[in-house]
Amino acid sequence: MERDETSTLISSDKVEGTKVFSTDGDELGRIEHLMLGKRSGRIEYSVMSFGGFLGMNESYFPIPWDALDYDTERDGYVVNIEKSRLKEAPTFAKGVQPVFDEQFGRTVYAYYGVMY
Amino acid sequence: MERDETSTLISSDKVEGTKVFSTDGDELGRIEHLMLGKRSGRIEYSVMSFGGFLGMNESYFPIPWDALDYDTERDGYVVNIEKSRLKEAPTFAKGVQPVFDEQFGRTVYAYYGVMY
Repeated sequence: MERDETSTLISSDKVEGTKVFSTDGDELGRIEHLMLGKRSGRIEYSVMSFGGFLGMNESYFPIPWDALDYDTERDGYVVNIEKSRLKEAPTFAKGVQPVFDEQFGRTVYAYYGVMY
Repeated sequence: MERDETSTLISSDKVEGTKVFSTDGDELGRIEHLMLGKRSGRIEYSVMSFGGFLGMNESYFPIPWDALDYDTERDGYVVNIEKSRLKEAPTFAKGVQPVFDEQFGRTVYAYYGVMY
């Protein structure tokens, strides 16, 4: 195993840039960065970037960490959502930071069927 | 506040590269990356790089997230350790990944006086 990963741990800079696929195999985007709780020390959201060109018109999708499963064959994360349904998922535009409050959190986690 | 930070959350790529200071004001190094628990979704260690030149002879110091306090004036983290005592702290060389197991974890956390 590489230096940036062990059986139980993974480096933040390895997660960033990793591809994300739908369960039916479509490539959805990449993990742009993680939003971490300053006090909790937890990954509150993984932020997936989607679409756009040279960083323009990109959309961002906050996804709970627990909703991402790593697929060694695809060398990327798999999330239980179809590409065609992505437009219904909680999203925000580049440069438009959402208010990551409790209500937003509950909405995002509920969307992916993960406990908040 | 910038888009990569809210009052309670911070982006992983903003943490990476942030300077770390001792309580008496010496610059110790920078946060190189975070080691995240794949299952726990927690920041298990912040890895601080220290010394070296152009990436050579760098040392890495695993530091518990809770042992880092953000100092807005210095625009960096402060850790309760003096630079002169850094050589006694748990460390590993570049390219030599430690076994991040429970024993290692307890040693690191105990060193910084943080609950494991």
